[in-house]
Order: sequence, then structure tokens, then C-alpha cells
Amino acid sequence: MNLCLLFGGKTYEHEISIVSAIALKKLFSHLHFFIFLDDNHHFYLIPANKMQSKLFSSKDYKKEKQIHPKEGGFFYKTLWGEKCLDFSVILNLIHGFDGEDGVIASLLEFYNIPYIGPRNPACVLSCDKELTKLYAKSRGIQTLDYKILYKGDTLNGVDYPVIIKPARLGSSLGIAIAKHQTELEYAIEQAFEYDEKVLIEPFFKNIKEYNLAGYKAKDGMHFSFIEEPQKQEILDFEKKYLDFARTQNAKEAAIDETLKQSLQEAFKKIYENCFEGALIRCDFFFKDSIIYLNEINPIPGSMANYLFYDFSKDLQNLAQNLPIQKNLKISYEFLHKIHFAKGK
Amino acid sequence: MNLCLLFGGKTYEHEISIVSAIALKKLFSHLHFFIFLDDNHHFYLIPANKMQSKLFSSKDYKKEKQIHPKEGGFFYKTLWGEKCLDFSVILNLIHGFDGEDGVIASLLEFYNIPYIGPRNPACVLSCDKELTKLYAKSRGIQTLDYKILYKGDTLNGVDYPVIIKPARLGSSLGIAIAKHQTELEYAIEQAFEYDEKVLIEPFFKNIKEYNLAGYKAKDGMHFSFIEEPQKQEILDFEKKYLDFARTQNAKEAAIDETLKQSLQEAFKKIYENCFEGALIRCDFFFKDSIIYLNEINPIPGSMANYLFYDFSKDLQNLAQNLPIQKNLKISYEFLHKIHFAKGK
Repeated sequence: MNLCLLFGGKTYEHEISIVSAIALKKLFSHLHFFIFLDDNHHFYLIPANKMQSKLFSSKDYKKEKQIHPKEGGFFYKTLWGEKCLDFSVILNLIHGFDGEDGVIASLLEFYNIPYIGPRNPACVLSCDKELTKLYAKSRGIQTLDYKILYKGDTLNGVDYPVIIKPARLGSSLGIAIAKHQTELEYAIEQAFEYDEKVLIEPFFKNIKEYNLAGYKAKDGMHFSFIEEPQKQEILDFEKKYLDFARTQNAKEAAIDETLKQSLQEAFKKIYENCFEGALIRCDFFFKDSIIYLNEINPIPGSMANYLFYDFSKDLQNLAQNLPIQKNLKISYEFLHKIHFAKGK
Repeated sequence: MNLCLLFGGKTYEHEISIVSAIALKKLFSHLHFFIFLDDNHHFYLIPANKMQSKLFSSKDYKKEKQIHPKEGGFFYKTLWGEKCLDFSVILNLIHGFDGEDGVIASLLEFYNIPYIGPRNPACVLSCDKELTKLYAKSRGIQTLDYKILYKGDTLNGVDYPVIIKPARLGSSLGIAIAKHQTELEYAIEQAFEYDEKVLIEPFFKNIKEYNLAGYKAKDGMHFSFIEEPQKQEILDFEKKYLDFARTQNAKEAAIDETLKQSLQEAFKKIYENCFEGALIRCDFFFKDSIIYLNEINPIPGSMANYLFYDFSKDLQNLAQNLPIQKNLKISYEFLHKIHFAKGK
């Protein structure tokens, strides 16, 4: 299996994606190609031995070969025409916009390039925190109560403390906790810097949190082990940033079999008939014996490799179990009928 | 305003899009370019005087100039390099897959090409009938009860008659009414031909239906007049097909001012903060004094021109009020920090 890593993107999480990509390269020997998407939406082919963060921060990547997507793959110019890169599957590792909002998924679908990653609807449902809640509820999974704010909206009857989040952003960007009105106003203003849509939820200090990753293959669901993430009040961007470089196995959460199965059952309900083709991580809360979905990471940092005992095997397994696009051919049956009816 | 019509697509509604495009060309003199997307995902530039259905059904379009999207527009090869088509805005008129599932929207966003049409999240929410219901409910708009079926699911306690629909398809394709179990089984099988996800709703004969189109500009919402569509039990594909060629104004529904305002209010709740950039048509049911959303057409057949008294003016108005993409530049602040911390 000849995998190609796609990373970067026009996204607030551009740098996180670079860190994620470098981490993944270290631990996965099946990666043979590295495609970097810069903030001008230009694609570059990065040689494996140059995969270091300095290449990107110095903008030296611009000296590398530029490539572009076309039907069936990524192409580069040669003296006599153009050539297609020889990989079998793309691994979409662009976090945030482009990668997780469905733009790259759509581009790859359009050009018929096989890829590991969430399909377009899965992206839209997981990148908007309100839609995630509506979706989870429709699958019988609880989420915390919430309110949505657009610019100019007013908010009454707030039960502090609350947590304020830009509705369509990951990686803790623009997230803050407010314990009273002044903090709330400041936090809302800050969140609006990132998104026109802001979500407000109750904040529970020391709420139990469990992270579980997984994917589906022909033989059913494959789950990672479960981690109880160690954290301060919330991870800020810089801490989460380093989190994306993780390559050491995490510590398995000490929970009983019943809870483990319930978390897996919830994960399965979220995943099936929507996230096929992707390895995702679901972050759950557990409070008063109820499981709540906090968020879906459809492209988790460094692919949540630290939750799998044999990550390389799982990634290859997923690569061999990707959804197949429907082959749809146009017959022009109706246009022929019209011409016939018109006597033309 | 130099508009370019994009039509065709790898979709069951490919032919409908051609009919829609030819209808629109006849009544809108601002269309200067016509881009056809065939079922191989190749784009062709069609000269205005060749915009006839026979060009496509005969596959003669393949003799026309092939073009491809790139940053800032659509390009064609010249002797000395390539040239960009000189239009200001694309009008996305691809019905069904590609056009209404977010693929084309994503492609145009990626290449930074301005377009009239639903953005990606709006596509995903309106093309999946279950998501449309979840979304409408979250905005305080009622929809009919429903059940979702995937292959292998069983269905109990059905209250006939019901209507069976592929969950992610428009234009009445695969839709059937069932009055008893044999019909239901056949209808479900038929719907599964089109989609792995099927939706079942109660069917109300002679339910009142009202269609309303509109869009948002800087000065607020602009509504079409309201039509009460004349129909048999349901429109089949062929009848709906001819419906897409409509260029004559429809008859305004004879309803009182209160109902009209309620329908507009419901439309606005659906539209705002999601469908900006698109002219959409919402099809409502009205039963026991309650408004139900039936479906959202984010790219209605021939752009629902027959519901506007001055369609040309409205389309130009929308073209001048498109959402602006956020300009996001990468600073590499965090990577620089890491290098500094590492002493590199």
C-alpha cells in the first residue's frame, strides 16, 4: 500500500497539520509521498528527507515541485507533457478548514482520487458543533445543552460557568470559559474573531472525559483503546499543538467493561453510515452515568496513532476498505424522447 | 454583470440541468458563457448559438473547447500557454449530485471562483432529507414525521399510506407512494436502487403545498411570489422534467396576508446564516394551520425564474451580494516558537 500524506491547508490549523504530518512520517514507513497545500492553495511535492518544519516556516517549500490535481491523481509537468504521481491512496491530514470542512474531500471525489478521510457530509456534520449535536441526537446520543449566537444576538439567563466556542473551529482556538458576565462578553467577542457563529455550553469542571478512535472495515468496527486525557481546565492552542506531535502510546483508561462497551456502542452509532473511509476520534463526556458526545474529530491530530497498539496495520486495513464511488453513466434517454416527440 | 452558466454534472439530474440551462438562456440576456460538465467530469465551453439539447445527447459537445478550473477561473489552452475565461460570476445550475451535494461549491471555493449557488454546508443540509428535517427543527420549523431505513433494516408499525424517498436525491427520482405492505416493499427496493439511505413519511393526499423562492442581499431578504403548484398525486420524473423548462410566470397563490407572511418568516429562518449566496426555493406543506417544510431546493429548476416578476434584476442583485471568503494568511508563529525553543 503506497500512501501519500496530504497536509497544510488554508486553515488556522495549518501549522498543526505540519506537526501532525512530521509526527506521522516518523512512525509509519508506508508513507512514500508528501503533498503540502499552502495558503495560496498551491500543492507541492515534498521529498521525504526534507519533511522538517523549517522547510515550511522558511517558505523554502516553494522551491519544490508544484503539482496539481486532475482526474485520477496529482500531476507534475515534465519536458514532454505531464506525469501522474504513483501512489494508491491519499491520507488527508489537513486539520480545520479545507481538510475537515469538506473542501478537500470534494476535490478528491471530483477528481476520483482514493483517500482516507471523512467524506463531504461527514465533514460538514463534524466541523459545525451545532450540526454535530443535531446529528448525535438523531442517532440517540446525548450532548450538552447549548445556545447559538450570531453577531448582534443577545443572550439572557446564563447559568455560569459556561464555555464559549467558535461553532466551526477545532483545536481549542477561540475557546474560553466565563464565570460571570464580563468574562462572557469578552469571550464572545474573542470567539467572533474566528467565526460568525458561536456556541455556548455549560462548563463542568472536572467532568470525566474519554477519547475513543476507530474506523470501519469489511469485518466491522475496529476500535482503539480508550484514553482519559490528562488536562488542565481546557487545553489551549499551544498545549494542543504539542499534542499533535504525539507518537508514544497513551495510557489506557482504567474503566470497567460496561462503560467501555457503552462508549464503543455510542461511537458505532455516530460512525456508521456517515464516516466510512475515515479514522475518527470521538471525545465523550461521562456525567451522572450518562455518556455525552463532546466532539467528533474526523481527522484527529497525528491520526490518534497513540491510541492504537498496531497503528500501521490499522491504517493499512482502512486503506483497503474505502467506500467506492457509484459509477453513474448518462444515457440521454429523456432528451432523446423529447427530440422524438418534437419530430427532430 | 458577466454571468457564466455551469450545468450538466455527473448526476441523475444531468439531463434536467441541460433543460434548465437552455430555458434560462432564453430569458436572461446577461449570460455570456456556458460551461458544460460531462459525466467524465470534463468541462467544455459551449458557444451560445450551440446551446441546444441535441448537442449534448449526440455527444457533439466533445468537439468543443475543453477547459479546466484553476485559481481564479476557468482556463483553456492557447498556442502560447493558457487563457482565463472572462466572466465575473458563475451560476451553478447543476441539479443533484455535484451541484447540490457540495462538490462543485467546494471546487469553486477552492479555486476562489465567485459563484451564485449554495455553499457547501447548505448543500449537505438540503440534499439529505433527514438532515433537512434536523436542520429545520433546530430553526423552529416543523417537518413531517419520518423513519430512516438502511439496507437490511426492518420496518414495523407502518401507518399507511406512506411516501418512500431516496434520502439524498431530488427531482422525484425513486419516489413512490405505498398503501399497503406489498407496495411498500417494492417501493423500498426501488428507492434503494438510488440511495443506500431511504426515508419514509406519512402521505397526505391533497395536502396544501406552497412554493416560495428567495435570496438575501445587503438590504435583507427578497422573496418571490408564492405558488400553489398544480399536481397529480406526485410529479413523476418526466413531468417534473418538463417543469424544469418553465419560463412563463406561474400563477400567484390565492392566500391571505397572514399565511403569506408566515411562509416568508419560515423561509427566512431556513435561509439566514446558511444559504447566503444562493437563490433557493422552499416547498412547504400547510395542514391544520401548521406550516411544514417539505424540501429545500438550493438550486431550483430553471432557478424558479417563473416565481419572479423581474427575474433578471433579481439575479443581478444576488450576483452583487455574494458572501466573501475570509482571507486567511499563515504566519508560522508557532513553528518559529518551536525552533526558537529548540535553539535551531
